Amino acid sequence: MTTVNDRTASSGTGSDLTDQEIFQAHEGGKLGVGVTAPLTSARDLSIAYTPGVAKVSRAIAADASLADRYTWTQQLVAVVSDGTAVLGLGDIGPRASLPVMEGKSALFKEFGGLNSIPLVLDTTDVDEIVETLVRLRPSFGAVNLEDIAAPRCFELERRLVEALDCPVMHDDQHGTAVVTLAALTNAAKVVGRELGSLRVVIAGAGAAGVACAKILHTAGVGEIIVTDSRGVIHEGRDNLTPIKQELLGYTNPRGVTGALADAIKGADVLVGVSGGKISEEEISTMAEGAIVFALSNPDPEILPDVAARHASVVATGRSDFPNQINNVLAFPGIFRGALEAGSRMITDRMKVAAAEAIAAVAADDLSADHIVPSPLDPRVAPEVTAAVARAAREDGVAPS
Amino acid sequence: MTTVNDRTASSGTGSDLTDQEIFQAHEGGKLGVGVTAPLTSARDLSIAYTPGVAKVSRAIAADASLADRYTWTQQLVAVVSDGTAVLGLGDIGPRASLPVMEGKSALFKEFGGLNSIPLVLDTTDVDEIVETLVRLRPSFGAVNLEDIAAPRCFELERRLVEALDCPVMHDDQHGTAVVTLAALTNAAKVVGRELGSLRVVIAGAGAAGVACAKILHTAGVGEIIVTDSRGVIHEGRDNLTPIKQELLGYTNPRGVTGALADAIKGADVLVGVSGGKISEEEISTMAEGAIVFALSNPDPEILPDVAARHASVVATGRSDFPNQINNVLAFPGIFRGALEAGSRMITDRMKVAAAEAIAAVAADDLSADHIVPSPLDPRVAPEVTAAVARAAREDGVAPS
Repeated sequence: MTTVNDRTASSGTGSDLTDQEIFQAHEGGKLGVGVTAPLTSARDLSIAYTPGVAKVSRAIAADASLADRYTWTQQLVAVVSDGTAVLGLGDIGPRASLPVMEGKSALFKEFGGLNSIPLVLDTTDVDEIVETLVRLRPSFGAVNLEDIAAPRCFELERRLVEALDCPVMHDDQHGTAVVTLAALTNAAKVVGRELGSLRVVIAGAGAAGVACAKILHTAGVGEIIVTDSRGVIHEGRDNLTPIKQELLGYTNPRGVTGALADAIKGADVLVGVSGGKISEEEISTMAEGAIVFALSNPDPEILPDVAARHASVVATGRSDFPNQINNVLAFPGIFRGALEAGSRMITDRMKVAAAEAIAAVAADDLSADHIVPSPLDPRVAPEVTAAVARAAREDGVAPS
Repeated sequence: MTTVNDRTASSGTGSDLTDQEIFQAHEGGKLGVGVTAPLTSARDLSIAYTPGVAKVSRAIAADASLADRYTWTQQLVAVVSDGTAVLGLGDIGPRASLPVMEGKSALFKEFGGLNSIPLVLDTTDVDEIVETLVRLRPSFGAVNLEDIAAPRCFELERRLVEALDCPVMHDDQHGTAVVTLAALTNAAKVVGRELGSLRVVIAGAGAAGVACAKILHTAGVGEIIVTDSRGVIHEGRDNLTPIKQELLGYTNPRGVTGALADAIKGADVLVGVSGGKISEEEISTMAEGAIVFALSNPDPEILPDVAARHASVVATGRSDFPNQINNVLAFPGIFRGALEAGSRMITDRMKVAAAEAIAAVAADDLSADHIVPSPLDPRVAPEVTAAVARAAREDGVAPS
């Protein structure tokens, strides 16, 4: 599965990296556990360990909610993967996925100020993964699912949201979707349109495509059509997976059939999350003022300079072109906001709120080449955090 | 279960601690995850995350052993508990055990320079705990079992040692046993005896008692008798647990029967890990030059000044008396040595080597009041590390 980060991009900021430099930076891994209190005197030991710690344990035994306050779990995200859909590399297994998960944990720390540990699993069985995380529930505050292959990722996330009383999110789905919605919100402004008036085609029905469809629908986008490798997803198709059948509940209201090209014709927006190719000719059939997000990596569905001949706003997943749609704009603030609020889940409204906050940061300085903030913009995570926490309270999933 | 650390000692360095001070030090927990490489520029991101990380993942996919080098796992100890035998508090559950496990992880960092994460489990089923850790195996480099109730702890450790190709040790058993052997080695020197000539009584057949019996036997102690709440463990007893039956393979060769008092009479060494009481009268029946380790906490089986009226060397688990038998002397170096050597397990010989190294640090300055180093002595962990790594290579469980 090709995801929509800049993950395997072989160009731009990454093209001049030597192997030596990369491997050297990975010696011994990228994470360390630190101690937040001194432990150098007998007195320190008697506070942080025994006998002092017994008082804290006894207090939590009497009132379990105190664990949120007196342990690290309420700021701890487990980054969970089975290594089945890692970057553009596919099913390389849990061990080989670890450097990516450590990188993700590092991003949680750097951008969200959250602690995070990679938990990679030597099983791909949904029941077993759910069971494992349920048993480990007291050890963490939230679960970020990562690089788990579709369609298993949909069932796994659904099952975990049911089973765990804490925030759970599959970032390959929703991180991408949130940033896509943020980008589309601003792109619509640039071309002077309302979301409700837009006709959107999503090329790709994997983790990212399905989540994009869902969030754009929630945000009130006018019409959404999703395509997969066999063309437009419509009522007349045989053997649709349950997820694709579910998509039909809120996509393709006009019952369009045929190939991707048939759907693109006259569309206002194209979101590419397919890993495939889209031709200049196809793009040229879109409506006036078209918006094209070619998010596959390392190779966008269409190169941005080509798309720009026919579209008013173009974005990719790559850091070497303008308008990088990068999950790191979303997940640190989403998890931090959910944890800070004490939310028991991450709702659709919290995701939309995150997208609005990301869009707002870029809105000061809006242009066709600046519809999303830079992934390094330090304003983003705090804004997303605040918006998500507020939405959690409004949705009643966190104490108000 | 009462363990033999200074865990619940309510006196000494801990007696003047206020609740406020203790709880304040625990706000937000005691651990944090840090990032070992900078992540502030686009270039940093492209090394530690994408696209650079893909090269490292691909290398591990081709050669799984590279995970030891390029991820944090080879320096990562999972501190695993089900919360069933926490300090002197008993079965308080996984959530309430967390402050203790965080403290343990902090000690791993501070004394062993190892990363460590608490994994507390919402199950007490041995099969389920084994299954969970087998699934998580790619996520860590070693397992420290902690505060798991006897007799389940014995089966759990045995099963995990079989199931996992990495160091696994239940510290409540072996950490205590290693430090006890170190202390006894030096105490024997102080009274001018050889280990092989000593008659030892171990009062208590829980996690620590059984492990002490085992390591003292391995180290060549002359005679060992173990007692439990029903008295001396001997062939004629009914309904012995499998663990106690196993003890009879190498303890009580003379077939002593009766109560603890019967065993103590004429013994050279008493190791108390029972949580019970031993009277001055009983101690007075021991042989000339007796050695008494009263290790229960917070209240030793007999107060050291009372025992000292009849014994030549006395030790406790408490920091406010001389000769503190504290696990922290052992576990950081044992795990570090095993991980540095790339050992696939922790053998009996590695434990004995750790005890010898601990004893050697105190041997420079040996006296009846100084048979073990201070828990804060910075020489201990490096010495234990080196000795354990050497023993792992000699035992053929690590590459030489």
